[in-house]
Amino acid sequence: MRLSKMHLKTLREAPKEAVLEGHQLLIRANLIKQYAAGVYMFMPMGWRVTRKVEQIVREEMDRIGCQEIHMPHINPGELWKESGRWYAYGPELWRIQDRNERDFVLNPTCEEMFTDLARQEVSSYRELPFSFYHIQFKYRDEARPRYGLMRSREFIMKDSYSYDRDVEGMNKSYMEEWEAYERIFTRCGLDYRVIEADNGPIGGSASHEFCALSDVGESEVAYCPDCGMAATIERAECVDEAPAVEEMEPVTEVFTPGTKTIEDVCNYLDLPVEKSIKALMFVTYDNDLNPADYVAVFVRGDRQVNMIKLVNALNIPEHYIEFADEEEMGPVTGCVGGFTGPIGLKNCIKVVDSELVDTVNMCAGANKEDHHCTGVCYGRDYVGDIVVDVKRLEEGMPCPKCGTPVKHTRGIEVGQIFKLGTKYSESMKTYFKDENGNDCLYYMGCYGVGVTRTVQAIIEQSHDEKGIIWPMSVAPYHVIVTVINPADETQAAIASQIEAELEKHRVEVIVDDRDERPGVKFNDADLIGIPVRITVGKKAKDGIVEYKLRRESEMAEKTVEEAIQAAKDLFDAEVFGM
Amino acid sequence: MRLSKMHLKTLREAPKEAVLEGHQLLIRANLIKQYAAGVYMFMPMGWRVTRKVEQIVREEMDRIGCQEIHMPHINPGELWKESGRWYAYGPELWRIQDRNERDFVLNPTCEEMFTDLARQEVSSYRELPFSFYHIQFKYRDEARPRYGLMRSREFIMKDSYSYDRDVEGMNKSYMEEWEAYERIFTRCGLDYRVIEADNGPIGGSASHEFCALSDVGESEVAYCPDCGMAATIERAECVDEAPAVEEMEPVTEVFTPGTKTIEDVCNYLDLPVEKSIKALMFVTYDNDLNPADYVAVFVRGDRQVNMIKLVNALNIPEHYIEFADEEEMGPVTGCVGGFTGPIGLKNCIKVVDSELVDTVNMCAGANKEDHHCTGVCYGRDYVGDIVVDVKRLEEGMPCPKCGTPVKHTRGIEVGQIFKLGTKYSESMKTYFKDENGNDCLYYMGCYGVGVTRTVQAIIEQSHDEKGIIWPMSVAPYHVIVTVINPADETQAAIASQIEAELEKHRVEVIVDDRDERPGVKFNDADLIGIPVRITVGKKAKDGIVEYKLRRESEMAEKTVEEAIQAAKDLFDAEVFGM
Repeated sequence: MRLSKMHLKTLREAPKEAVLEGHQLLIRANLIKQYAAGVYMFMPMGWRVTRKVEQIVREEMDRIGCQEIHMPHINPGELWKESGRWYAYGPELWRIQDRNERDFVLNPTCEEMFTDLARQEVSSYRELPFSFYHIQFKYRDEARPRYGLMRSREFIMKDSYSYDRDVEGMNKSYMEEWEAYERIFTRCGLDYRVIEADNGPIGGSASHEFCALSDVGESEVAYCPDCGMAATIERAECVDEAPAVEEMEPVTEVFTPGTKTIEDVCNYLDLPVEKSIKALMFVTYDNDLNPADYVAVFVRGDRQVNMIKLVNALNIPEHYIEFADEEEMGPVTGCVGGFTGPIGLKNCIKVVDSELVDTVNMCAGANKEDHHCTGVCYGRDYVGDIVVDVKRLEEGMPCPKCGTPVKHTRGIEVGQIFKLGTKYSESMKTYFKDENGNDCLYYMGCYGVGVTRTVQAIIEQSHDEKGIIWPMSVAPYHVIVTVINPADETQAAIASQIEAELEKHRVEVIVDDRDERPGVKFNDADLIGIPVRITVGKKAKDGIVEYKLRRESEMAEKTVEEAIQAAKDLFDAEVFGM
Repeated sequence: MRLSKMHLKTLREAPKEAVLEGHQLLIRANLIKQYAAGVYMFMPMGWRVTRKVEQIVREEMDRIGCQEIHMPHINPGELWKESGRWYAYGPELWRIQDRNERDFVLNPTCEEMFTDLARQEVSSYRELPFSFYHIQFKYRDEARPRYGLMRSREFIMKDSYSYDRDVEGMNKSYMEEWEAYERIFTRCGLDYRVIEADNGPIGGSASHEFCALSDVGESEVAYCPDCGMAATIERAECVDEAPAVEEMEPVTEVFTPGTKTIEDVCNYLDLPVEKSIKALMFVTYDNDLNPADYVAVFVRGDRQVNMIKLVNALNIPEHYIEFADEEEMGPVTGCVGGFTGPIGLKNCIKVVDSELVDTVNMCAGANKEDHHCTGVCYGRDYVGDIVVDVKRLEEGMPCPKCGTPVKHTRGIEVGQIFKLGTKYSESMKTYFKDENGNDCLYYMGCYGVGVTRTVQAIIEQSHDEKGIIWPMSVAPYHVIVTVINPADETQAAIASQIEAELEKHRVEVIVDDRDERPGVKFNDADLIGIPVRITVGKKAKDGIVEYKLRRESEMAEKTVEEAIQAAKDLFDAEVFGM
């Protein structure tokens, strides 16, 4: 391909809304173009990379015997009503209607469709296990689409679904996908970790995220430097500190004027923060988004509430809860903003962090303006309606597996796998017949790869101040032949020779034959990140060219034949050697 | 691939709403599955075929230097408002909103987006000409989705757009696409014709359809058996018969009780039908779908009105017109249902077919119950506000090019190409700078291939009572190895040997190793239409297998080596030989 015939409009500056370097480079290198918030066009080079990532995913799915199909992008609302997610899925679910006012959704994910497929197509245990996948555009009407392809409203996802007759089968399918994902992200050149994750709105019994490590990732990860435990902050379990063993004191109301925060009251009373109880008040909503319940959450004063653990404990979707207006709920529950405590609180669900169980002589709000209580003891003075680990695992807290203080890092979620169990086969009454003719529920798994997000994750991990550094496996072209003076016949002929010989070997070559200054060409080559640059300049008349890898700073003079051979060898090792 | 591990659920019967054989076979062979009216899922074999057609299209687009990009499926409503098509495009345009009530459309076609792309990305004549394409799902919210993939609401289309600086450039780009289309449909094994077509809602100055000939096609085609003229009925020009040369008679009102049709009145007055004038009354609507104008159309009594020619003459979209309620418009225009004629009609646009110009002594309605006029002469008694060829070219009418009586046939529109001229660059103010720094409008072309429709067109043209007969170029697999008794070790080993040797040659093989009766296997192989069947049965122990082409009835015994070689040769000739 000749660059003079290809559209490439690189930019010196990215628009200011692009804050991540990967997003900036996607735009500056003319790989994508924004068309509406979170809606992108893929330009020639960007689409080539995307299709390569897609092809890697396809090959690894085929390798484990998963069968490719294609679901429609729009699917009937009835299926979502049947599973209940029509209501439970937040406003990210893009609900549309056709001309006859029939409800559809633009697929955000496809559990309903795939469950229905099994219900329609498969009837006997003899056909199990099986798995299907598709690679298609998905839609999520995000409140704040941002960060380029990291959180866009239209994005490519591979999702696959496995169907098994029992838990053992599901676990085996889960591991096969896990291993396929390891091959996918390795081939894409990513530095990633597999971490325990929350199942979120997909549901099910277990889940792992494949996280490309990156400071700009949206996934917060807690990990143990000792034992290797790694989990999203949302998911990470906490070890409860054992309650102090003390004589119980009586509950005493004390005057604590103006001490609305935990810090204030502990300072005022000269108490360690661990001896206080923090209260947070929420309101939940039902399917019609009418207020349902008030919820009071209690954790130790030095802990933070983990919202995901909370909604899981309440068994409601994430968008069915928000902070309550304490003035409004005061008359109903007895709470007093800044002075709320567990004693005497009524007409609300009390969620108590498991760490508070058996604690004694704690300080908590007195449900009375400017007053707290001391001597508050769990069991004697209050109990929880729900008692559960509802706190965040902060940096420095002990690892739930080995006790070593954990660390935090960030990552980009490029894949996630879920054990769904019978969640969807149950809600959608999907059975197969076993050997005895009995109806049995499928055990399902579902598995997603964010294809377009992976493209950006690769850039986030692999770039420098000059631009992108593509791994060979997904580079839009493997080699760029930069011709210093395309009008020079010798240079033009040698460029054509290199192009022809490499293409015969299936190496993808782009020749920069534009009528531009060499500096412009070098800058563009670096910006778009082609792995190998062969520069054909003055010494071409002596059969000498420059050979340079994008990822290295050194440049070497080689004969034309040596340069061709070096590029072929690199291609064989890094594209076909994997 | 082993059929025992692949999902394939063939059906004996198609659902009764599938009336076309191609649609029936798509469903019976488990290639597609309906999920809502006009919304389909592609099952493993069906998706393989679709991807192969897609790849043929891609290769031929790349060959002419067209660059692949990818547009979002949803695009901003503002662009459609800018071009005016937000209003002019009928209810097939699927208009949706996001959570912030911003308007989007699900792409039915992408002229606006591609025009905008040029506006944003290209500025100089030096970058011209160029062309882009994408292959993506498109959406049309059809009133009556039907006939399987022929008229579905979600379908795959390749569309490309060319940008040139002048008419000559546009014509050259148009011919390059034309030739690419010929290669595409030839490689897909279709029997097709290129015919003149109406530009329809896309607009522009000229258009051609690529029609796969088929009795079940929705395109009605008029063609000349002599000179090769071929055009859609909507587009086909008519030759006006010269008016009879007669002395003008005076207009005479005659009593014609109960003669509401042309046939009735001509019988009653004993006139040839060609001496009568037929009147048809319409009402048009504006952008807000409020009534705009009444329209009276006059053609010779033996002619039919061509609605496309009519809306083109009125310069309105097809869905902005419908038959008028004659009772309602009577007081306004003076028309009288069944007795409407041109004399004295008021407050409406009179569209007169060009053939009526200079006709004399015609019979027309008198705008008075039970009365007609005779002696009606064009020019003396009435004239048209619009005079234009507004009639259908019926079978037997003279060819507009050579005069030979034309014939009619039907075809499936698998591709259409359009010269857009400056329609979109004008409405969307899209310019490039010429050598002198002047702003110039682009000359654009747009070009579509119905990828999924092509899949069905191939089946409509290539099947028999047993099932589909795929051409090698798009077959889901090239060879099926049918193992009569998979439990027999010799048979199993020979099947594996054939599979391995053919796959090494890149031939795609599916082995039917299911525990089923041979009859079931043969029926499925014929139904899904794999081009080559190699049957491994009892004679396998002597190294003999059966070799049969799906498209031929004869079957031959061959040695294993001969069968492998024959399959390889066929593959080389028909997949790579093209």
